[in-house]
Amino acid sequence: MRIEVICTGDEVLTGKTVNTNFAYITQKLEEVGLAVRWETTVGDDREDLLLAFRLAGERADAVIVNGGLGPTVDDLSQEIAAQAAGVGLVLNEAWLARMEAYFARRSRAMPPTNRKQAMLPAGAEVLDNPIGTACGFALDIGKARFHFTPGVPRELRRMLEAEIIPRLLAKQGMQSAIHLKRFHSFGIGESRADALLAGVTDGVPDGTVKLGFRAHYPQLETKLAARGRDMEDIRRKLTPVEEEVRRRLGNFIVAEDDRTLEGVILEALSARQGTLGVVEMFTGGQIAGRIAPLPGAQQVFRRGTVAPDLVEICAAVGLDRAAAGDGVTPAAAERVAGAARLQAGATHALAALVELDEGADRMDFAGTVCLAIATAHDVVSRRSRLVGGRDWVRLGAVEMGLDCLRRRLQGLPVAERIDFEKLDERA
Amino acid sequence: MRIEVICTGDEVLTGKTVNTNFAYITQKLEEVGLAVRWETTVGDDREDLLLAFRLAGERADAVIVNGGLGPTVDDLSQEIAAQAAGVGLVLNEAWLARMEAYFARRSRAMPPTNRKQAMLPAGAEVLDNPIGTACGFALDIGKARFHFTPGVPRELRRMLEAEIIPRLLAKQGMQSAIHLKRFHSFGIGESRADALLAGVTDGVPDGTVKLGFRAHYPQLETKLAARGRDMEDIRRKLTPVEEEVRRRLGNFIVAEDDRTLEGVILEALSARQGTLGVVEMFTGGQIAGRIAPLPGAQQVFRRGTVAPDLVEICAAVGLDRAAAGDGVTPAAAERVAGAARLQAGATHALAALVELDEGADRMDFAGTVCLAIATAHDVVSRRSRLVGGRDWVRLGAVEMGLDCLRRRLQGLPVAERIDFEKLDERA
Repeated sequence: MRIEVICTGDEVLTGKTVNTNFAYITQKLEEVGLAVRWETTVGDDREDLLLAFRLAGERADAVIVNGGLGPTVDDLSQEIAAQAAGVGLVLNEAWLARMEAYFARRSRAMPPTNRKQAMLPAGAEVLDNPIGTACGFALDIGKARFHFTPGVPRELRRMLEAEIIPRLLAKQGMQSAIHLKRFHSFGIGESRADALLAGVTDGVPDGTVKLGFRAHYPQLETKLAARGRDMEDIRRKLTPVEEEVRRRLGNFIVAEDDRTLEGVILEALSARQGTLGVVEMFTGGQIAGRIAPLPGAQQVFRRGTVAPDLVEICAAVGLDRAAAGDGVTPAAAERVAGAARLQAGATHALAALVELDEGADRMDFAGTVCLAIATAHDVVSRRSRLVGGRDWVRLGAVEMGLDCLRRRLQGLPVAERIDFEKLDERA
Repeated sequence: MRIEVICTGDEVLTGKTVNTNFAYITQKLEEVGLAVRWETTVGDDREDLLLAFRLAGERADAVIVNGGLGPTVDDLSQEIAAQAAGVGLVLNEAWLARMEAYFARRSRAMPPTNRKQAMLPAGAEVLDNPIGTACGFALDIGKARFHFTPGVPRELRRMLEAEIIPRLLAKQGMQSAIHLKRFHSFGIGESRADALLAGVTDGVPDGTVKLGFRAHYPQLETKLAARGRDMEDIRRKLTPVEEEVRRRLGNFIVAEDDRTLEGVILEALSARQGTLGVVEMFTGGQIAGRIAPLPGAQQVFRRGTVAPDLVEICAAVGLDRAAAGDGVTPAAAERVAGAARLQAGATHALAALVELDEGADRMDFAGTVCLAIATAHDVVSRRSRLVGGRDWVRLGAVEMGLDCLRRRLQGLPVAERIDFEKLDERA
């Protein structure tokens, strides 16, 4: 099945808006085993829209059109779709009623211009949009089935998943229930994860569970895209694979699905009525910045401190200068974490000390990270050498600090070798 | 002149990479008065590339092709370009020598696969790429002039500006030297800036200086795109317009061109051997996070503190509880800034205190921001009501904190009404 995508709108064509909708559409299709073959972007222009629709209608079996379903005069998708299909526009009374109810719920009268959004090409099949006024629809143009979607990202997403992908899978002769399971990990690169998970879907012989990755340093996302007759069928096939992924990636999994590393930390602290202090060097307060703004962090996050060197760090947490004597070491991190915990009156404190190597910034530039986590009962620490240039050392130090805290809260080993570390020359 | 863009590569077609190159190309062309009419994305596929080149060659006058010039087997642009133009591939000896020198400078032998990058369609004009091994080239296919560019963003950018835009402008019969002047401002929305700058380019009667905006809350970028015979001609036309923009936007301009608000602050502090302490509430350390990681900030940024409420803030800077008694007020911010300055041993300290309104987060949700800047000689403060929901209040508070510090360092009034403020109910 040849699938094409047509993106419309002057905002996208002029680059005022970066076309993230297209990337979303094509990624989502790929996850369920469908490939986009060709993409076209045109502006809000009658002649170009008509040509784009006709060309795609000649080449493709299925087309997804994004944008142009709004109430304004430059939204032309329904009109040009009707023209390309050689049919007229017809008022869809049901959609008009839906829109009127939509505005009524918001205690507003529907502006007359919105009526346009209920004018659909004759014979079009409605693609539901329960969260907006743009009515999606499907229609044959040439030899292809066209699916018209709204430009508003959240409306597009919902329509793509609930309405369009099931239709495309059915057209392709594929089972049409789908589910995406995601694992977020820190510390393993894509190639190692790929090797660790070799054959993990072999137990699902019909190929309906597909493994994929998305690397966005410092985290890696491991995806299991599953197709089935219904959610129960999917659950049955997916559960053993999920368990195997969890077993093989083990301690490196920081969160699953929509959860985040910082969210997991906040939950773990909240669950034990814990509170947190953070002291950072070189990371510019980015560790605090991941936790402090979260909803519910107000009761947990007590204090964050950032300073440029160990002398200032020690001064800030009330240690005397001598404590900084031997430089950035695990012992220094432990002292700082202990002092920061007492100072903030918190149950837990994290200290992240970073010392960059000398020399110019380049790909193999490295830094030493010493992390410590103090509680009322003990203090744990780790030392690590991170590589990849200043910015990568910073990103890595932030993530490693958060991850050590997660490991400590979950009772896992805090020091476990990760892929972004340099072999420690001093070890 | 009809311009089309063709983006190639499986990475872009599958959405693994969001197509920011296209947005860049079309924005850059728009800045000099050229419009892109049509964009096509295809994968690394012989048949689709050939069809895309032929279709664009029939429709367009000029085409920019992005990607496919690399050394690997899936880089097909030269080969398919030659096929579409009906010519053979010829080794470009000069480019081969360039590549060999490029590798020699890096003390490496050129891998044999790179030789492919010097194979160009017969009759192609070289488009220089001084920062990479991919050779750009221009070639006629059908009735259009095609310009082939590398997928690596910084190589594309350089080639677009130095090689392609001048050729397109010449083809269009436009003066071909170009320059983009940018002003970054905080506190004025796009519509007010548009009104303030009405007629600002009227003194340039031939329309060769064009005004534009790019809003990315909380900052606004005001752009002057100028065309001319040469840089001296541009300079002559642009200087009076620049001066008028500076006069009209006045104190709201935070930086120009590649400079940033935080960079301007760092420079101003460095120039007077100043040092800085920052205390933040609700902003999660984002003010510190803008300054602390900058090159050169090590000597200036002394300490950053973040805490969830005024009681914790006061404890952190060594003020007693009573200092928090009357809540988030300018006076409290002044006390905190003064104490923070002494504690950090800094010449300047910024305190940013935020109190959110009660209730659910929504578009008209607001917060009170009290900012103070203390020096050894005085302390200044301002109170502001920011609206737009929790996240916008946070972004606005960070920017306003930095902007007040800039204003203080530049001797400008710290409290000047901005467009994102709610009229103060208490004023």
